[in-house]
Amino acid sequence: MNFKVPRGTQDILPSETWKWQRVESVIRDVCDKYRYKEIRTPIFEQTELFQRTVGDTTDIVTKEMYTFTDRGNRSMTLRPEGTAPVVRSYVENKMFGYADQPVKVYYQGPMFRYERQQAGRYRQFVQFGVEAIGSADPAIDAEVISLAMELYKRVGLTDYKLVLNSLGDKESRIAHREALIAHFKPSIDELCGDCQARLEKNPLRILDCKVDREHPLMQSAPSLADFLNEESAAYFEKVKGHLDAIGIPYELDPNLVRGLDYYNHTAFEIMSTSSGFGAITTLCGGGRYNGVAEEIGGPASPGVGYALSIERLLLAMEAEGKSFTKDADLDVYIVTLEEDAHRKGFKLLNELRNAGIRADMDYMDRKMKAQMKSADRFKAKTVIVIGEDEVADGVVQLKNMADGSQEKVADSTIVTALHEKLK
Amino acid sequence: MNFKVPRGTQDILPSETWKWQRVESVIRDVCDKYRYKEIRTPIFEQTELFQRTVGDTTDIVTKEMYTFTDRGNRSMTLRPEGTAPVVRSYVENKMFGYADQPVKVYYQGPMFRYERQQAGRYRQFVQFGVEAIGSADPAIDAEVISLAMELYKRVGLTDYKLVLNSLGDKESRIAHREALIAHFKPSIDELCGDCQARLEKNPLRILDCKVDREHPLMQSAPSLADFLNEESAAYFEKVKGHLDAIGIPYELDPNLVRGLDYYNHTAFEIMSTSSGFGAITTLCGGGRYNGVAEEIGGPASPGVGYALSIERLLLAMEAEGKSFTKDADLDVYIVTLEEDAHRKGFKLLNELRNAGIRADMDYMDRKMKAQMKSADRFKAKTVIVIGEDEVADGVVQLKNMADGSQEKVADSTIVTALHEKLK
Repeated sequence: MNFKVPRGTQDILPSETWKWQRVESVIRDVCDKYRYKEIRTPIFEQTELFQRTVGDTTDIVTKEMYTFTDRGNRSMTLRPEGTAPVVRSYVENKMFGYADQPVKVYYQGPMFRYERQQAGRYRQFVQFGVEAIGSADPAIDAEVISLAMELYKRVGLTDYKLVLNSLGDKESRIAHREALIAHFKPSIDELCGDCQARLEKNPLRILDCKVDREHPLMQSAPSLADFLNEESAAYFEKVKGHLDAIGIPYELDPNLVRGLDYYNHTAFEIMSTSSGFGAITTLCGGGRYNGVAEEIGGPASPGVGYALSIERLLLAMEAEGKSFTKDADLDVYIVTLEEDAHRKGFKLLNELRNAGIRADMDYMDRKMKAQMKSADRFKAKTVIVIGEDEVADGVVQLKNMADGSQEKVADSTIVTALHEKLK
Repeated sequence: MNFKVPRGTQDILPSETWKWQRVESVIRDVCDKYRYKEIRTPIFEQTELFQRTVGDTTDIVTKEMYTFTDRGNRSMTLRPEGTAPVVRSYVENKMFGYADQPVKVYYQGPMFRYERQQAGRYRQFVQFGVEAIGSADPAIDAEVISLAMELYKRVGLTDYKLVLNSLGDKESRIAHREALIAHFKPSIDELCGDCQARLEKNPLRILDCKVDREHPLMQSAPSLADFLNEESAAYFEKVKGHLDAIGIPYELDPNLVRGLDYYNHTAFEIMSTSSGFGAITTLCGGGRYNGVAEEIGGPASPGVGYALSIERLLLAMEAEGKSFTKDADLDVYIVTLEEDAHRKGFKLLNELRNAGIRADMDYMDRKMKAQMKSADRFKAKTVIVIGEDEVADGVVQLKNMADGSQEKVADSTIVTALHEKLK
């Protein structure tokens, strides 16, 4: 029997994880600067949470969820996105009562969508996202966008743009909804079965249908921008004003609606403009979701947030030819030449590590040449060689890999000698 | 409808996550020093992987797995432990062909076991573990144990002990197995149904039965120590020798068998000896598993590893009254007193952040006093106050929270002034 990684998922191997760690370290650093604190919710939630918030006519809920029944006969779903769980936690833990509002959090971890396989899309993928819940100040929409932009800058990307839209408030959306129904209804049988089902339930979803995206009715569909009421338009002006003030350029796109039902007012995406990037150019997306907390039984708690996929961030770096510089694996590698030397080497190895030195040795009983090659691959700055003579004399050979120089050092002074060299 | 976190799982809230981050930072640091590199495998695997490796008579496999059928009609299981997925990845990715053996990796992330709820036990819990695959050198068993011990030391724990046993090789285990059957068979109807089923299939598992643990037959059961063949005994002596050489004390416990089938030779646990700790004192456990790679279709690849639960590490810290010191949340908090000031404040906020300063402001249109209280809670070193006058004059008030001193600073020199102060 041969076992394989489940289809649509991937192992991230030791040769790659360091890049992920580097991105995560940038993320932690930027979040810290903006005072977003980490929150960790479970990998699965009650299925209904996503039906209620993401929306039961969205592709995510109807086609892509990993849903199962647990041993207590409850329907659970591996989280397909991070906002609903965070809002669930905000309500359940009564964070609306915290003295400091909005509550600003970030999360990071695997999400699950049973999607058709394609380049850069995985069924398990890693999302990072932030949420600011409890404030309806347009400045915080701009803050979230600013944080999103900074992350890409910090990892060295240059070819990306911000695309912005407003989905308006409930009243604006109802007016737009009616116009959409009027627009599509006469020719609805030209569209796919999914779109036909969406017409009365959720006509906005027709606009992000993957099957009918080239149909002429899509281009001519009434734009939400024309249905924003005064309050929604004013809100959107303020968000744009704050972005202008802090020098963040944006493109307006009235067709940007996002694939989740909970958004209102601000919606945005950051897209790669690198020619090396694939067909799906969205790097991240987000927006405002003022109704979600109420929808799941909490008090009115306006929220705004966004999420990115780390896989796509790394792909964008590759497309732009940007990379991190890898550190050396080791300070010291210990080469040992027979059993007594190995025993002495192991003891020394532990002394070095206890002194904070990054060190390793051979555990395969290999010849000196093979051990030296390992030391090279690990980019060890210093190699310690121990043979029969060194055991007998209570010394080691200490080889500086930068200049090839070698010296004999007494066992008792090795740590001091190394600390000097590795400074 | 009210939504709750799924039973047996927990949210880790922003007030707690910083402790987890601190532990994880220690983990990364120690693994780096020992040259263990991170690997990330998916959250779920083919169910059969765990049946084949963890063992189909273990509690984990028979009672505790979160198993579901995916949309492609394949049986998948949320990983209950981390070793089998890592070995699966080692085999699938042909890591046995890597020039540097053993392959030394660590993993960290959620694991899932549908257990009876009790203090410190969650159905989703976070495990950290290391695996060294490809070497049968007893020194590497000692290395893994040494790493495990160092982690607890580094987080400040003092009350813990290492418990050690050898499960021997296959031949030793078969001899012991026959003795166990002979021992239990005459009185098997005094034991629970599970134990009766285990008698022929896997009598070793009788020894970790939770129902019959007080039965007199348990204490008098033949000990594996008496059945180790010469090679297994010699191997165990070498492991102990290396531990002695690096000054790690241990207790021998011939009844330590671990709840997973794949272990052989070295088995160990580290247990809390703190009186403040609960009934289950195991902090982590591991051992050698030389047969797993072959069991799942790979070449013979001896392995050794261990895993700890971060929840239990934090509980042990609590029991010993050890804690981390929390950093301040902010360098600067910006207090703004009306709309123009808010706009100016938001612009300034972004300048500060662009300059690497950890800063935040009010997004709730609150009174000055409430904003100052936030600044206090965030332990901001400096507060910037902007009112109508400051907007008109192109200045801000800069208040040093340590000594209460205040000064007026021109807009254009704020960043320089703050960098000076925050040094």
